[in-house]
Amino acid sequence: MTAVQFLTVDQVRAVQRDFGTPVLVYDEATLVRQAREALGFPNAFGLTVRYAMKALPSGAILRLLHSLGLHIDASSGFEVLRAIRAGIPPEYIQLTAQELPADLDELVTAGIEFNACSLNQLAAYGRGFPGTALGVRINPGLGSGHNNRTNVGGPSSSFGIWHTYIPEVLETCAAHGLRVTRVHTHIGSGGNPDVWMKCARLSLDAAAQFPDVTTLNLGGGFKVARMPDETGVDVHEIGAVVRDSLEDFAEACGRKLRLEIEPGSFIVANAGALVAGVMDVVDTGAAGYRFIKIDAGMTDVLRPAIYGAQHPITLVPATDGERPEHEYLVVGHCCESGDVLTPAPGNPEGLLPRTLPEARLGDAVVIGGAGAYCSAMSCKNYNSFPEAPEVLLRENGDMQLIRERQTLEHMLENELLI
Amino acid sequence: MTAVQFLTVDQVRAVQRDFGTPVLVYDEATLVRQAREALGFPNAFGLTVRYAMKALPSGAILRLLHSLGLHIDASSGFEVLRAIRAGIPPEYIQLTAQELPADLDELVTAGIEFNACSLNQLAAYGRGFPGTALGVRINPGLGSGHNNRTNVGGPSSSFGIWHTYIPEVLETCAAHGLRVTRVHTHIGSGGNPDVWMKCARLSLDAAAQFPDVTTLNLGGGFKVARMPDETGVDVHEIGAVVRDSLEDFAEACGRKLRLEIEPGSFIVANAGALVAGVMDVVDTGAAGYRFIKIDAGMTDVLRPAIYGAQHPITLVPATDGERPEHEYLVVGHCCESGDVLTPAPGNPEGLLPRTLPEARLGDAVVIGGAGAYCSAMSCKNYNSFPEAPEVLLRENGDMQLIRERQTLEHMLENELLI
Repeated sequence: MTAVQFLTVDQVRAVQRDFGTPVLVYDEATLVRQAREALGFPNAFGLTVRYAMKALPSGAILRLLHSLGLHIDASSGFEVLRAIRAGIPPEYIQLTAQELPADLDELVTAGIEFNACSLNQLAAYGRGFPGTALGVRINPGLGSGHNNRTNVGGPSSSFGIWHTYIPEVLETCAAHGLRVTRVHTHIGSGGNPDVWMKCARLSLDAAAQFPDVTTLNLGGGFKVARMPDETGVDVHEIGAVVRDSLEDFAEACGRKLRLEIEPGSFIVANAGALVAGVMDVVDTGAAGYRFIKIDAGMTDVLRPAIYGAQHPITLVPATDGERPEHEYLVVGHCCESGDVLTPAPGNPEGLLPRTLPEARLGDAVVIGGAGAYCSAMSCKNYNSFPEAPEVLLRENGDMQLIRERQTLEHMLENELLI
Repeated sequence: MTAVQFLTVDQVRAVQRDFGTPVLVYDEATLVRQAREALGFPNAFGLTVRYAMKALPSGAILRLLHSLGLHIDASSGFEVLRAIRAGIPPEYIQLTAQELPADLDELVTAGIEFNACSLNQLAAYGRGFPGTALGVRINPGLGSGHNNRTNVGGPSSSFGIWHTYIPEVLETCAAHGLRVTRVHTHIGSGGNPDVWMKCARLSLDAAAQFPDVTTLNLGGGFKVARMPDETGVDVHEIGAVVRDSLEDFAEACGRKLRLEIEPGSFIVANAGALVAGVMDVVDTGAAGYRFIKIDAGMTDVLRPAIYGAQHPITLVPATDGERPEHEYLVVGHCCESGDVLTPAPGNPEGLLPRTLPEARLGDAVVIGGAGAYCSAMSCKNYNSFPEAPEVLLRENGDMQLIRERQTLEHMLENELLI
């Protein structure tokens, strides 16, 4: 019996017993499969796949994905240092950041690839490294995200250089002898091939204005289906329209551009699960709700509480035998009414109960689809709960600890009492 | 010239220079004033003020508030340990938690006060400490929060024991010889005196069913005004209706109940400010927006991104002299379109520009009202950004470091590479 895509009921119980709860488990087989799928993205003149490490930056995950042939996209100077610390050679790391790191010179000298994301960033880079090649991130004026908060293109997005400023980019490059060899756009995480085609064409319009361009980087993630009723992006469908656009561009402009993509969720979302323990089961009477309280929550998986995101939820009973089913709301351990794992879809203030077997103390609750933006983007340490440990389920079935459970001493190491 | 309630322009520049940005600054004078205001809450038969430490749990803050006469409400066993570590005697700490800590027996033996928040918690406590006194948290069936996510009473809330289960509470108490001396309700963070009166009466209806009750704990925060156009709760107005209710109860039931309240935001919200640096200034053309990018964001202040919460924002120029004003969106440093400090009120997916002096690199941006649920409840370490340092502005004008800037090594101390 399977509790979640990659964990059997017995494995969930073994995780509970061996590591305690809550614990995040990542599946090597899924990571390998998704990395290979991304590496098979249709392309005309070569492909580089950069893993968007902000989705799940644990060192062991970075090493594994790099060993499969993935490069890295880092969103901050700290992410670059973290990737280097995990053993990724700098030349495999690209920095595309809102905030220019204080140690940019050292990072570039070490060998990373740099994408200038604003005119100020471009000028700063030019002063430090005149006469070199770099990428620029352009906001092509259109985004594909499924809501404002996942849209990183268009006029309401601060990401990249607004497309009408390309003349200023060229001026700054001329002033410092810079060559723009990579044009980067980042258009959200949508799944509609028509929007991708429009974005690819807009991006190529931008690329056409840079005489030295060799690479088109289409950042932005691919929509992932976490729930059975959701539809993820078809990378082959999207890839085909992008490939056609690159071929058309080659014919029109005589330049064969290498393609770069930057999947994050696509690689890791369904490779992760949170295994939590049932701490309590309560209800608010016959006209109210039944609640399962788990020993994790917004400290580990914040997406439901902020987006109304839906994650698969399975109850794994501690004991065998038949149980009746009930409608339950699943809530987290924080003293916070918003710490809910079962919001209404897209509405974090709404509630939508799930049908689950009768829950009892000591059972496990498994939250699926918890690989991307969960450990990485949670209300860590809220209510002073420590970071959960992370475990990698190897292809041979071994469970390997890749992050220890945080201690209170570790959490408070930088606190000073007066 | 004042940049924010308690920081002059010169002080902001001094903070920038001496501690670097981003940095959270807390104001001792405001903390003292708010603590005294809370201690002046009208009451009939005595008052205990418990600081809800989840709002801002830094050890130096806990010590300061304790020295002013405040007790502590902890939301987890980890918070209890943290408070003890900061020097708070256990008998001043009350635990009111969704998750029963694994070390409950040790904490109770050390001397903390315990509120049972479910029938299971009550039974577990009864097995460990038969024949003793404790509190119970009751869900009286009504909440006062301003939205579902700040409502911790009513049928959609999992907090406390649903009021119709009081007979089961009494049975469990009888089985273990427990005496309920404190009845605790927690009704959200509203500011309407009528709702508070209703909640107080419902809470007293619950209290009337416990023959040993000596204390009524009305948990739940007091609505705070962060913005000039917001109205905070009038504690005297609310306190008066609560006092009247307690007096009526004494007359009707012959029992004079001590009152406990649990302010969090009320004490610390406007005692905190985030001082960030301007990292970039960009725009999306004449028909688009102007953006100020700061070196902080949802990693430090998450409330705007999840609730559309409004915080005062001031630009403190690095240089003197007149500057024109513009409409700006202020965005954070994360590679995340939702990392916005200027959402539309109550709508995190909307945008509402602010009028600010022309921003230039090196200026400071001060986010006010950042004492509560900012450092405590943020997307810490997202994009691998380290925790910002925390500074206490003493009443004598000294700036004292109470948390050091986190290092990458500290952040990754529990990571294991394989």
